[in-house]
Amino acid sequence: MKIEKVALIGLGLIASSIFWAVKRTGRDIAVVGTARSSQTRETARKIGLCDTVVDTAVDAVADADLVILCVPVGAMAAVAKDIGPFLKTGTIVSDVGSTKRSVLDAVGPHLPEGVHFIPGHPLAGTEHSGPESGFAELFDNRWCILTPNENDEAAIAALADFWRSLGANVDVMDPDHHDLVLAVTSHVPHLIAYTMVGVADDLHRVTDSEVINYSAAGFRDFTRIAASDPTMWRDVFMANKEASLEILGRFTEELFALQRAIRTGDGDHLHDYFTRTRAIRRSIIEAGQDTDAPNFGRGKT
Amino acid sequence: MKIEKVALIGLGLIASSIFWAVKRTGRDIAVVGTARSSQTRETARKIGLCDTVVDTAVDAVADADLVILCVPVGAMAAVAKDIGPFLKTGTIVSDVGSTKRSVLDAVGPHLPEGVHFIPGHPLAGTEHSGPESGFAELFDNRWCILTPNENDEAAIAALADFWRSLGANVDVMDPDHHDLVLAVTSHVPHLIAYTMVGVADDLHRVTDSEVINYSAAGFRDFTRIAASDPTMWRDVFMANKEASLEILGRFTEELFALQRAIRTGDGDHLHDYFTRTRAIRRSIIEAGQDTDAPNFGRGKT
Repeated sequence: MKIEKVALIGLGLIASSIFWAVKRTGRDIAVVGTARSSQTRETARKIGLCDTVVDTAVDAVADADLVILCVPVGAMAAVAKDIGPFLKTGTIVSDVGSTKRSVLDAVGPHLPEGVHFIPGHPLAGTEHSGPESGFAELFDNRWCILTPNENDEAAIAALADFWRSLGANVDVMDPDHHDLVLAVTSHVPHLIAYTMVGVADDLHRVTDSEVINYSAAGFRDFTRIAASDPTMWRDVFMANKEASLEILGRFTEELFALQRAIRTGDGDHLHDYFTRTRAIRRSIIEAGQDTDAPNFGRGKT
Repeated sequence: MKIEKVALIGLGLIASSIFWAVKRTGRDIAVVGTARSSQTRETARKIGLCDTVVDTAVDAVADADLVILCVPVGAMAAVAKDIGPFLKTGTIVSDVGSTKRSVLDAVGPHLPEGVHFIPGHPLAGTEHSGPESGFAELFDNRWCILTPNENDEAAIAALADFWRSLGANVDVMDPDHHDLVLAVTSHVPHLIAYTMVGVADDLHRVTDSEVINYSAAGFRDFTRIAASDPTMWRDVFMANKEASLEILGRFTEELFALQRAIRTGDGDHLHDYFTRTRAIRRSIIEAGQDTDAPNFGRGKT
C-alpha cells in the first residue's frame, strides 16, 4: 500500500507538525488540509501549511490514501459521519486523539466497508496550539501508538512506515490498554497540574505576583502543562473517564498516605518514598525521552 | 558592613552555585567551605570548589563576615549549636533553607548576642544535587527571599547586596508568609509530583518500560521534580507541616470537584477550569521566570 496523498482534517499543533515532517522526508507525498474555522484555513494558506488547503473535510478526503483526523476527540464522530460516504475503497483512516477506545467507538460505525481504520496516537506535543505551532521535529524519537481493532497487516505496516518516516517509533497496542497507560503518563498528570495551578490562582492570602515571581521553585513546570489546549483536555477526560478515575483513585490514596506521614511526622516514610521515585527519572533519560540538562536546559537556547 | 569573607556550611547544589557566582562577581571575597562528609570535602578540593575547604564548621566560621548554612533544614539546629560559640561579633548568619519559620526557631537560640541572623531562601535549584552540580548562573534573575526577625537594616542591606551581586532579585518577607507562599509554589507541587511518579511506578498493569517510553505525553515533567534530593524534601515537609497540610487540603478539595465533573460528564466545568489556568503561565513568562520555548526548549541545547 502506497501513501502518496494525505488528508489532514483539523490544522492544530499535531497536524501542522505532520505536514512539516512530511515535507522533511523528501518523499513525493501531497498533503491536503482543512479546518472548520475559516480563520485557521486562512492562516494555513498564509504560512504555506499544506500543499493545498480546502474548505471542507469532504473535499479533503477525495482520493486520499491516508486520512488523519486531527480534531479534538469530541469532534471525531461528526467528522467521520461527514466524510464516510466520500472515502474511496482502500483508504487508511487514522487519527491523533489522546484516547483510543472512544475514537474506535465514535468513528468506526461511520466508515464504509473497504476502508482501513487504524486509530493512532503520537505521544508528542507542546503547550502551544494552533496552526502556527507545528514544527518538523516534533515526533523525532517520540512514540506513536497504533490501536487497530482488526488484524489488518498491510495497512498497519503502511501507517507504521509513514510515522517512522516522520521520525517516530511505532508501537501497536490494545485500545483499552492504551487508555490506561495514557491515564498514567498523561491524563492524570495534566489534571493534577491544572488543579495545582487553579489552587494557586485561588489562594487570596498569596498574591498573584508572589505566585508568578516565586514560581521557579517548582510550580512553573506545572503551569507549562496547565497551559495546554482546554478543549482537547476536556474531551480527553470525557472520553477516558474510567481509566482516569481509576488512576485518580490510586493517586489520592497515595497522596493521603503521604499527607498522614506529614501530619504524624513520619520522616522515614517520606524519605523512602522520595528515594524510590528517582530511579524512574534516570530510566526516562536513558530511554532518550528527556534531557539530563538541569531544569530541562531552560534558558540556554 | 563589608562582606569579604564568606563561610559556606554544606557543599551541595546551592552552596557550590554560590561559590561560582561569587567568583563571577570579580569582587575580592574569600570563600571557605566545609561539609560533614569527607568525600564531599575531597570532591570540593578536587574541583576547586571554594578558596579553602576546611574539615569542620567551627574552623570555617572563624573571622567570617557572612556564614551561610547550606545544609538540609533538619540539620540546621545541630550546626548552629556547634558554631554558635565561635562566631565573631558582627557576623551575619544566614541560610538557604526552603522553610523559614522552622529555621528561625531552630537556629536563633544557638546564636550569641551581636550576631546578625537573617534567614534567606534563594528560589533556584535543579533536580541535581551535590558539590558538582553547582553553576554560576543558577541565581540569575531568580528571587532570594530574606525573612529577618528584627529590623536589622544595615545587615539586611549588606546581605541583599550580596545576593544581588550573585544575579538574584531580593525580597523581604515575614517568615510565616514565606512558608505559605512556598507551600503553594514549591512544596505541594513537589509532593504531588512525587506521588504521581510513585503511582506510575506501582501500577502493575502498566509496565515500567511503558511508563518510560510514553512519558513524553506529560509525565516526564513530573519525574524531573520528583528526582530532587530526598533528604532535603523530607525535611521541608517536617518543617513546614501546617502550610503544606493547608494547601494539600485545598488541592484535594479542588481535585475532587474536577473528579466529580469527570464522573458526571460535566465538560463545561472542566473547560472553564482548564481555560483560566492559561493566563498564569503567560504572566510567569512575562515576569522572566520561565521560557516560552515549547517544552521548555528541551533538546535544543
